[in-house]
Amino acid sequence: MTVYKAPVDEMSFLINQVLGMDKIAQLPGYEEATPDMVDAILSEAARFFGEVVAPTNQAADQQGSHLDGTTVITAPVLDGIYQQLTESGWTSLTGDVEYGGQGLPMLLSVAVDEMSQSANMSFGLCPMLTKGVVTALDMYGSDEQKALYLPKLVSGEWAGTMNLTEPQAGSDLAAVRTKAVPEGDHYRLSGQKIFITWGDHEYTDNIIHLVLARTPDAPEGVKGISLFVVPKFLINEDGSRGERNDVYCVGLEHKMGIHASPTCSLSFGDNDGAVGYLVGEENQGLVYMFAMMNEARLAVGLQGVSISERAYQQAVAYAKDRVQGSAPGVSKATIIHHPDVRRMLMQMRALTEGARALAYSALAHEDHAFKETDEAESAYHQRRVDLLTPLVKGWCTEIGMEVTSLGVQVHGGMGFVEETGAAQHMRDARILPIYEGTNGIQSMDLVGRKIARDKGVAAGELMKVLLPVVAEARTAGLVEMADALEYSLAACQQAVESLFAQATGDWAAPGSAAYNLMMLMGTTVAGALMAKSAIVAVSLNASGEGNGVFNNSKITTTRFFAEQIMPRNQAYLATIKAGSASVMALDIEAF
Amino acid sequence: MTVYKAPVDEMSFLINQVLGMDKIAQLPGYEEATPDMVDAILSEAARFFGEVVAPTNQAADQQGSHLDGTTVITAPVLDGIYQQLTESGWTSLTGDVEYGGQGLPMLLSVAVDEMSQSANMSFGLCPMLTKGVVTALDMYGSDEQKALYLPKLVSGEWAGTMNLTEPQAGSDLAAVRTKAVPEGDHYRLSGQKIFITWGDHEYTDNIIHLVLARTPDAPEGVKGISLFVVPKFLINEDGSRGERNDVYCVGLEHKMGIHASPTCSLSFGDNDGAVGYLVGEENQGLVYMFAMMNEARLAVGLQGVSISERAYQQAVAYAKDRVQGSAPGVSKATIIHHPDVRRMLMQMRALTEGARALAYSALAHEDHAFKETDEAESAYHQRRVDLLTPLVKGWCTEIGMEVTSLGVQVHGGMGFVEETGAAQHMRDARILPIYEGTNGIQSMDLVGRKIARDKGVAAGELMKVLLPVVAEARTAGLVEMADALEYSLAACQQAVESLFAQATGDWAAPGSAAYNLMMLMGTTVAGALMAKSAIVAVSLNASGEGNGVFNNSKITTTRFFAEQIMPRNQAYLATIKAGSASVMALDIEAF
Repeated sequence: MTVYKAPVDEMSFLINQVLGMDKIAQLPGYEEATPDMVDAILSEAARFFGEVVAPTNQAADQQGSHLDGTTVITAPVLDGIYQQLTESGWTSLTGDVEYGGQGLPMLLSVAVDEMSQSANMSFGLCPMLTKGVVTALDMYGSDEQKALYLPKLVSGEWAGTMNLTEPQAGSDLAAVRTKAVPEGDHYRLSGQKIFITWGDHEYTDNIIHLVLARTPDAPEGVKGISLFVVPKFLINEDGSRGERNDVYCVGLEHKMGIHASPTCSLSFGDNDGAVGYLVGEENQGLVYMFAMMNEARLAVGLQGVSISERAYQQAVAYAKDRVQGSAPGVSKATIIHHPDVRRMLMQMRALTEGARALAYSALAHEDHAFKETDEAESAYHQRRVDLLTPLVKGWCTEIGMEVTSLGVQVHGGMGFVEETGAAQHMRDARILPIYEGTNGIQSMDLVGRKIARDKGVAAGELMKVLLPVVAEARTAGLVEMADALEYSLAACQQAVESLFAQATGDWAAPGSAAYNLMMLMGTTVAGALMAKSAIVAVSLNASGEGNGVFNNSKITTTRFFAEQIMPRNQAYLATIKAGSASVMALDIEAF
Repeated sequence: MTVYKAPVDEMSFLINQVLGMDKIAQLPGYEEATPDMVDAILSEAARFFGEVVAPTNQAADQQGSHLDGTTVITAPVLDGIYQQLTESGWTSLTGDVEYGGQGLPMLLSVAVDEMSQSANMSFGLCPMLTKGVVTALDMYGSDEQKALYLPKLVSGEWAGTMNLTEPQAGSDLAAVRTKAVPEGDHYRLSGQKIFITWGDHEYTDNIIHLVLARTPDAPEGVKGISLFVVPKFLINEDGSRGERNDVYCVGLEHKMGIHASPTCSLSFGDNDGAVGYLVGEENQGLVYMFAMMNEARLAVGLQGVSISERAYQQAVAYAKDRVQGSAPGVSKATIIHHPDVRRMLMQMRALTEGARALAYSALAHEDHAFKETDEAESAYHQRRVDLLTPLVKGWCTEIGMEVTSLGVQVHGGMGFVEETGAAQHMRDARILPIYEGTNGIQSMDLVGRKIARDKGVAAGELMKVLLPVVAEARTAGLVEMADALEYSLAACQQAVESLFAQATGDWAAPGSAAYNLMMLMGTTVAGALMAKSAIVAVSLNASGEGNGVFNNSKITTTRFFAEQIMPRNQAYLATIKAGSASVMALDIEAF
């Protein structure tokens, strides 16, 4: 079994020193988030997730979830954990104070969420989805709905789910067929949803499903989708739990990973129709769902960080323990002495730190977007969040696969046997580039909605912020990073220009190049944030502040990122410039 | 369940038109390998592996292997398949005619082996390891041992295994502890071996274990290892099966993939000591084992091709079937219409074709090394095989992981559920960069034994053969490939020079850069062989020969390889030039 110890120093450094918690704590409502408060929460969360949740990870994978009739039987090792999680308040950090939440900044909760997903990703999905339901209802629910659902969802007394996918409607929500027929103050829903994460369980008294469905006269396509709230148990006038609603789990997927997370097929309305309540207006469901999905996308990107961190810690522990061969001055060397193993560990470390910086930075902008009183200022940060979202989701999950696979490799043969747990991380990580919009969808979102639609305004704003980092890095003596970042920023610029030029005469150009552009931009922004971190470390070293070992490690890891990761940008740029010709030339019949 | 259809046209093209089967068929003993014979064997093998073996793959994964006492219970779906395999002669293609083999070229058998591993990789491991035992005994066994073992191993009546690894001795065989004490004409062995593929089963009357062990007075380290043959059942004077030898399976690994392949812990000598017979001379075991291991390394590289081909076929089938979204002119489009999906499929295709060309080319040189009557000529080809072996093992297995992971991604959510089989390919592929020497070990073998030790002679010979391909590609109109190859060959040269320069003052330089050099050279040689294939295709098109669709597809896929894969060489070169500083700078305590 593997130990997990939250990287609290790194988290605190990033939050307090690099990403500007001091400024966020000046925003109205966030005054409590002082550095002391941040560190206190981080260390208490580290204890809870490290000592209580993390030890369940491997057993939960082995036990998995099972279906007994229509009842989901969750992994026994998790019994009681959910109650501890919610009672300790770990699910309500960012919840609105009005509904019993703690109203803390997202730049703080992101670190706690990272720990949660490192500790047990399968389990962490349950509160993660509930949080998405809170966001959607908070933004679009009626006052009555908010009053009814939010207090119990924020506290975790009830859980929430997202119901989008149907067998014929995965990436293409236009194909959603679930029906919702009006009946008095509610609707009756019928249809099948699949891939519903934690779609059923007995951790909570009730489960609040958010469901995409079509009313009888709805227009075709995505413009005819409405959003409904469908509780597992109806709620009586007095707020007590009423009768069972007509929604049942009829199947669980047998998956490659995240075995402890029940992935349900939910059947709505096999009997009289499931009672559902419209959220907002009819036919606006997709807009509402996106609010929830964007948050979920950031959360999935963060899962890439979490699983990478856990795999890294495990690989380091193994490499420090396993004796094999010799090294200069060491006759029986642990494998961490071998340069190729060191390369793998540094690659894992650098990618994880870069991804963490990228993911956290998006949440910092989200705090500003949420709380800035100046509208233009808020809008500026919202544009940045929107731009960063596909990078966080796409890049951080791609590197999650890379890092967990390297973790297996560091273990050699022991990595392939399930006993060590290294294989589990890799199996678990494989879902991340798929769910909440495949990374192909993310890359199209980046190119289409986030860059082309506003004619590059948001992308230009990002460049404007990152360009000065080159000179700052050079001044700080971070020569390799200054060079790599200078090249990479220019490469982003060239790539976008090349893509726009191609796209005028070639419908397939954006789609052919989108993935590589996402990887190029993700590597670049992560690199720039590594640069910013190392600049802070240099400055702390100069003034004799902070932990010297930590500062120097950050500087070294940043140099590794510049020298060993950022050269990939040369390849990404070349593939983008090459255009779609060889991608699309083969006739479909020739495959 | 997924269908597998052997890519016979591609195999025949590569063998007959690109890699020079005509010349190999002129070597003494290979005269039977006419183009007609080759094609007849390929099409019959395609039938057997496609129709008989391939349908077992998914069920065998689900059923797995189990241990009942010390008896290995193999997947029921495989019952009888081994007998069909051997009775059809598929395991004896390259066996020496003297021992009942068919004496055919390896450039032919490699295609059959590819099919075997595509059809069911777990199952294919059993005959694959037997073949390695045949090679080792053929080269180093006594006449008596050859006469006793080879006929039944060649026919497949008996199976063979390789016993190297012990719990404390994985990559470092110097740490082997299994003891062999002389007793009359034999030795008594005692010790534990782990990770023994198909270490026990009931497919055959007997299993012939080749075992590394130490005699009582052996020197320490790798110079004190001897090789023994230890049959599961002793053999009576009359050749009949004698008493059970003291070697038992005491455990099976629970693995991420290749579930149907029993990975055994074998205990030797728990009672009176297992009877073993020395192969060759004492203390020469490592040399002998390498003969077997080098062949196994090529075979594992080929498994990377096999699993890639299978994953590719499955992804194509899914992409042609799954309707999602729209494309220009197609309102309900199958996902193969979408450029990002097309990119993934082309990436899978190009990598698989490149890897196949690389793996097959090594076997073509092996045929020449084996049969050329001129010693210098034979030695020339042997040097090439030696140089290519770590590239085949390393590069083809790395791309095996990439291709199978892309295969999952093409399936979206359905790729993560086990039902489709896409996940199994990825789980199975994960062992390939680990066993038969991790890819870290391969890369050190490349840098140390294959390039540095002969002062670059073999590498220079390879360059000399590949450089003219640039001009040939340009003449054939393959501009993108000519450019990419020209760059890549220069990059290989620069990388080796840079590495040698660094290595004089920095012990860690070779190990830090070795993996990236292996990837650079693998991509380059695979690219050059794609170029040669496309040059042939252009010339066939010009003379109106061959299948036009096939030729054009090869040309397109080669362009894709040049434009979308070979740019990675820019990144590999940059990381190598950067040196070991940032790889090694972090103190071990700082991890």
